[in-house]
Amino acid sequence: MNRLDATALRDIARGSSVLAGGGGGDPFRGTLSAIEMTRQYGPPKVITIGELPDDAIVACPFIIGAPLAFLEKFPFGDELAVAARELERVIGAPIAALLPAEIGGINSTLPLALGARMNIPVIDADTMGRAYPEMDMTLLNVEGIPAAPTVVADEHGNRVVVHATSNVWTETLARTVSVKFGAAAAGIGYSATVARLRHAVIEGSLSNVRAIGRAMREAAGDPERVIASITELTDAVELFRGKIVDLNREIVDGFVRGTVLLDGAGPDAGSRMAIDIQNEYLVARRDGSVVASAPDIVTVMDAASGLPLTTESLRYGYRLVVLGIACNERWRTEAGLAVGGPARLGYDFPYVPLEQHATARARGPIGAWSTA
Amino acid sequence: MNRLDATALRDIARGSSVLAGGGGGDPFRGTLSAIEMTRQYGPPKVITIGELPDDAIVACPFIIGAPLAFLEKFPFGDELAVAARELERVIGAPIAALLPAEIGGINSTLPLALGARMNIPVIDADTMGRAYPEMDMTLLNVEGIPAAPTVVADEHGNRVVVHATSNVWTETLARTVSVKFGAAAAGIGYSATVARLRHAVIEGSLSNVRAIGRAMREAAGDPERVIASITELTDAVELFRGKIVDLNREIVDGFVRGTVLLDGAGPDAGSRMAIDIQNEYLVARRDGSVVASAPDIVTVMDAASGLPLTTESLRYGYRLVVLGIACNERWRTEAGLAVGGPARLGYDFPYVPLEQHATARARGPIGAWSTA
Repeated sequence: MNRLDATALRDIARGSSVLAGGGGGDPFRGTLSAIEMTRQYGPPKVITIGELPDDAIVACPFIIGAPLAFLEKFPFGDELAVAARELERVIGAPIAALLPAEIGGINSTLPLALGARMNIPVIDADTMGRAYPEMDMTLLNVEGIPAAPTVVADEHGNRVVVHATSNVWTETLARTVSVKFGAAAAGIGYSATVARLRHAVIEGSLSNVRAIGRAMREAAGDPERVIASITELTDAVELFRGKIVDLNREIVDGFVRGTVLLDGAGPDAGSRMAIDIQNEYLVARRDGSVVASAPDIVTVMDAASGLPLTTESLRYGYRLVVLGIACNERWRTEAGLAVGGPARLGYDFPYVPLEQHATARARGPIGAWSTA
Repeated sequence: MNRLDATALRDIARGSSVLAGGGGGDPFRGTLSAIEMTRQYGPPKVITIGELPDDAIVACPFIIGAPLAFLEKFPFGDELAVAARELERVIGAPIAALLPAEIGGINSTLPLALGARMNIPVIDADTMGRAYPEMDMTLLNVEGIPAAPTVVADEHGNRVVVHATSNVWTETLARTVSVKFGAAAAGIGYSATVARLRHAVIEGSLSNVRAIGRAMREAAGDPERVIASITELTDAVELFRGKIVDLNREIVDGFVRGTVLLDGAGPDAGSRMAIDIQNEYLVARRDGSVVASAPDIVTVMDAASGLPLTTESLRYGYRLVVLGIACNERWRTEAGLAVGGPARLGYDFPYVPLEQHATARARGPIGAWSTA
């Protein structure tokens, strides 16, 4: 992969919507922005981290806030570039390349838009291997790399520079500012040298979601095949099939929080699944028992199309296929779980890897239930 | 006035509590801090703005938040100096002198503490001639001087730099950060050259409150004489005498907000006064009619001691003498009222200067009612 065309950008958006686990906002909006930037500034260039010298400075641009608000505030215009230029002033050095903070939703494709605009490459990697609701929840944080200084900017030219003593403080302060900016804002942080980042990132993330997105495109129109191609490329396990019978979501403190309740169908008839939402799908419970939780990815497909649904696009009555995808192994260490595990998200149950839960099963055909 | 001793610092704190109009927190806490800094670093030096060269950089340090929280977080230690050093980094120049943002409460004496610590002088002036709840409400703002960049810091080393497009935005962002910092934080902003500030400040503020504080000290123990000396030095008018019969106050969005209700006594028997609070006493209504409002100063004396009471020190049953003090003339211009008048504070009544209200009267003796 090198210079990306519009098809590649759309594939990346589509594929990243699988690993987003419902979060990160509508990825197609991020794509529109990337395509527009490509039109204006030329296609974004993607490189491996190995192509950069050790002393090159890399930073992670992002949108922070509640995905519901992304929809209203989109498209993000100058504020990402304003934030990046401010960060360069603060650290006193130019940013040589951008690193996607998460590989899911808008935050996977916005670095490509900003890279095109700033004419700097984007690294084929990310810091989570998924999407997470809070900006301290990265493998960079697991490695002790500070998110600060982090710059948060709005569309009016307001900028806030956060110098915090911990990445949780950076998250808290950037979040409260994003709420004042209208529940969503542009940001950039986690600036570090390539030498510091090399072993902290997950490499190949953009290539990975591009391959997933390509397979989904080729299967488009056939929900069975779309889900099968996702399952194959991600080693997903099927957690549940069912229909939304209850749904509550609200924007609280700069997050979308809520729960979605499914009535089982097909192989899950007679059972219920509840999924907790904090921007992403975080915890899936079948008949009251946890069957998957962060850091593993819980992702939800629309049975009618096979395409992933973000937490804000759920509607009462939708028929869903719920998949679980194993997270990167580094999340399963003690240090990883401290940053991205259930306890960090406010839960008191211990993390059990997805594949050890008895309820995970190989995926069969969706069959007639999905349109019943 | 030049190097200030402990008596001078206490006089300034006492006198500034009159012009604080109930806000700015307990001034004696600020004094303790200033006295402690004097012990450690030598006495603070006070100069006139005329003693500084045109190109000298001046900035306003402050505590932002709800005065109730000042009590819990006091004393402010390193965070003011941390904020000041961060501001110097951001503007790329040393701060030559400090300017009190308000002449009321902690924010009048903290510049003296910080000046002693940083070994730079404090200017005998301020930016309000009173205290105001929000940091855009300064005569500097009336003159178009930006509060940004403003730095807000906490006691843990967290720092946030606000670059905002307006002083109201600076206030909003600094306030929301201060709430996350525990409802109060150290800050510094409004950096500008002496040439820019010279005609925007109110000169002689520290000398003024020092003279008021000295007169109060000399009259101490005799509430009649304390209030008479305040009245004489400030041209105050008496607005009401009465007892607190209702009091509600809460911390909302980083402010103390509420209302205090007085039952009239002595010359005001049979009447009621309600005073609105937003950190400061902002509006006084007698039997439903406004008799004084910001930008004029509403200040409240404890009839038992003659000393001013801050909004957070009020208690049910206290007997009060309510005074009104005319604000600086520049607040009464159209531009001044836009920044500090009733409309800016969310009221829809027009501003009428204190002395044009018929209810203002010369102060007589407190008499027997106060201890009845």
